[in-house]
Amino acid sequence: MTDLPMSQPIDQSLVRFAELLADTARQITLRHFRCLDVIETKEDATPVSVADRETERAIRSLISLNYPTHGIEGEEFAATQADSPWLWVIDPIDGTKSFVTGKPTFGCLIALLYENEPQLGIIDMPALSERWLGVAGQTTQFNSATCATRTTENLSEATLYATTIDMFAGPQLGIFDSISRRARFRHFGGDCYAYGLLAAGHVDLVMEAGLKRHDYLALAPVIKGSGGCISDWRGEPLGRYSGDTVLASANQRLHEQVLAMIRSVQNE
Amino acid sequence: MTDLPMSQPIDQSLVRFAELLADTARQITLRHFRCLDVIETKEDATPVSVADRETERAIRSLISLNYPTHGIEGEEFAATQADSPWLWVIDPIDGTKSFVTGKPTFGCLIALLYENEPQLGIIDMPALSERWLGVAGQTTQFNSATCATRTTENLSEATLYATTIDMFAGPQLGIFDSISRRARFRHFGGDCYAYGLLAAGHVDLVMEAGLKRHDYLALAPVIKGSGGCISDWRGEPLGRYSGDTVLASANQRLHEQVLAMIRSVQNE
Repeated sequence: MTDLPMSQPIDQSLVRFAELLADTARQITLRHFRCLDVIETKEDATPVSVADRETERAIRSLISLNYPTHGIEGEEFAATQADSPWLWVIDPIDGTKSFVTGKPTFGCLIALLYENEPQLGIIDMPALSERWLGVAGQTTQFNSATCATRTTENLSEATLYATTIDMFAGPQLGIFDSISRRARFRHFGGDCYAYGLLAAGHVDLVMEAGLKRHDYLALAPVIKGSGGCISDWRGEPLGRYSGDTVLASANQRLHEQVLAMIRSVQNE
Repeated sequence: MTDLPMSQPIDQSLVRFAELLADTARQITLRHFRCLDVIETKEDATPVSVADRETERAIRSLISLNYPTHGIEGEEFAATQADSPWLWVIDPIDGTKSFVTGKPTFGCLIALLYENEPQLGIIDMPALSERWLGVAGQTTQFNSATCATRTTENLSEATLYATTIDMFAGPQLGIFDSISRRARFRHFGGDCYAYGLLAAGHVDLVMEAGLKRHDYLALAPVIKGSGGCISDWRGEPLGRYSGDTVLASANQRLHEQVLAMIRSVQNE
């Protein structure tokens, strides 16, 4: 669980560029929000909207223009130059179910990895005008001010978020149920916003499953830079070897407590 | 399921006064939002905040000053003059779990009943600057513009909201599960906001249970005035004889289809 030393510093021009990507995504998604242009339902029942694709196309073309050697991995289209040391991982609209039902808690996730380590992450909430910016080695910013997680140290006092009970498959549901019922309370419906609220000191835990790389890689720098911990349910850092599970905690002590409980529930 | 004739018209001064109550609640709750002044957890694990009580006190004192003969029923304190023909039913902060975790989807619910019939309802979202105003016999307003529900007629095409899977007790869970899995998708985390989104034409169905009078009486005029239907799961109008369940639908055909499915699931 120790962080690797930062392998490549993120310079200010890269941060500015990442924010430009988020600005662009915000403009496009807000033009479509509450405009009923949903086009289809994917096989896994995730609604995909015109806005989703249009946003990812715009982000991809900006990256290709400005950083032609960088790789790009997105939700909607095939990866390009995925073997490049610098890799952008994009989720144009995280929370499409919220988006297509007019609920403003959808977000845009932008991650920049260097040799598979997340170095920069943005959680942007277009309809709420809220943005978290995390850069490796720096304090996370929420709307341009620094932010910090809570000091809650026990699960019984912790508030716990997950997007939906439907995201847990097979034994994951039992584990989630066992942990979440020991929390102060559990609450559904967060998508990426839950991680932002954790970084800003409002939520103690987020416990999810069924996630893909574009759902979680942007979260890591945001959570770490605000004092929180994030890993998969085994404690593995998010990245090459993590599974589809994510546990984010307000601090290391809480994180280790919950990881130990997960192990103990699994061994029951 | 036919609406009773409106027994007492709501005049413009009552509407203005109801909006003043919502304005007052908005100011107080926003002063406390994200300020970490949660004080306790009620027996049923609902977090109660200072803001909740302060807001209800302010609303109650405004009503007592301006309409001293009207009754008041709230979430936090005992009812006063509950036998008065005019009765205000107030939920100062609907969605306290969202409120205490910094999530802006909490609302304020204000209902005005005449002889037990909801005549006026307000769903106000302080942190989102959004408000729905429903008055019996009038078209519902969303931020001062008229709004209308969707025309979706089949459950398989309908989006369905509920606040949490944890709100369904005993056989309710099986019924909810059976219905919601036949929808286009189900989505959690709405609180009163889900009903506003339905009135504004973004969501097709809301199916909930474990609700109290202050959770649903304000919803009825908002939903009806936008073309939607709302009742308990048996089809009974919300009010004196309804249970703790609520079904809100974008239109009557969808409502009747889902009510029929509920009956059929119950008889299985």
